[in-house]
Amino acid sequence: MGKVILNISMSLDGFIAGPRIRDEEPMGDAGEKLHDWMFKGNTEGEANEFLAEFFENTGAYIMGKRTFELGLKPWGENPPFHAPCFVLTAEPGETIIKQGGTSYNFVTDGIERALERAREAAGTKDVIVMGGAGAAQQYLNAGLLDEIYIHLAHVLLGDGTRLFDRLTIQPADLEAIAVAAKPGVTHLKFRMKDYM
Amino acid sequence: MGKVILNISMSLDGFIAGPRIRDEEPMGDAGEKLHDWMFKGNTEGEANEFLAEFFENTGAYIMGKRTFELGLKPWGENPPFHAPCFVLTAEPGETIIKQGGTSYNFVTDGIERALERAREAAGTKDVIVMGGAGAAQQYLNAGLLDEIYIHLAHVLLGDGTRLFDRLTIQPADLEAIAVAAKPGVTHLKFRMKDYM
Repeated sequence: MGKVILNISMSLDGFIAGPRIRDEEPMGDAGEKLHDWMFKGNTEGEANEFLAEFFENTGAYIMGKRTFELGLKPWGENPPFHAPCFVLTAEPGETIIKQGGTSYNFVTDGIERALERAREAAGTKDVIVMGGAGAAQQYLNAGLLDEIYIHLAHVLLGDGTRLFDRLTIQPADLEAIAVAAKPGVTHLKFRMKDYM
Repeated sequence: MGKVILNISMSLDGFIAGPRIRDEEPMGDAGEKLHDWMFKGNTEGEANEFLAEFFENTGAYIMGKRTFELGLKPWGENPPFHAPCFVLTAEPGETIIKQGGTSYNFVTDGIERALERAREAAGTKDVIVMGGAGAAQQYLNAGLLDEIYIHLAHVLLGDGTRLFDRLTIQPADLEAIAVAAKPGVTHLKFRMKDYM
């Protein structure tokens, strides 16, 4: 069985999006800075290698409804996931099939059921919790995460959507699996331990 | 002239102290986890070397009133600073002289005046803004910091005092000077740029 991993870019001041998220600016004001590291200071080869490894090990994705709605258009007809995505939502919907193996499946019966379905789809590969903040917090608070990967963007946004907010967990030590400094970002991989 | 540096330990979820700060628990509940890295997984030599370098380059310290009040007793009669400390406060007070070169000087006329006095005392050495969060935020928002050193403790506290809160700055890219992974902590040193 694969792992359940929260994988997300966050600013040094703790934001995963800037303020005023809207269709035209799905990452909020200045929120695109959080992803600059994917494009700046890396050769195309390095960036591709990093992303290839990420996508290769992943068998399914979980995301919140808002993340899905904001991403649907930019991700396009052949989304980068090439795997089933499970969307946490209150409203049932028909599964949307895209090219290259990506599907958007709507789950209305809670985060645990969504994880069950994602695990089933992922087989031996990992399940990635992509966000938004609400989805991340629910999985963290429910003790369902095995690992947390934070791409700490070397930027202060000053305002926006906080990743680590409304937490109900007990103080927890994290075990660093990997720390890698790259231009514009520090990649931090942690294993959860002493957790819940 | 030395630099003005915010230097502070912060949890992955952005807290510089746990909840319920009080005299008996000056770092709040579980807040001592933020400083575990100073003692765990380091040889005594490594820890001493790290701290020695920190104290050596520093000519003066700035801190908030609450930080001073909570620290006064634990820092003892021969505090680790060996330099003048400037305490931001609303109430004037007599300078307190401790052993080994540490003095606590109370500044009632604002953060800029406190910095002026600290710079004067520091000469060519650096001025360290130690916190708490209020002091850090005021210096950050006023554009007075040259560098930010975050000792990112590999821990989730879940609740407490946030460092990066109530910011009024524009989104700002940071230039990484150094990233060092150590047991229990990632040391991040940033130079401020495109700031204010």
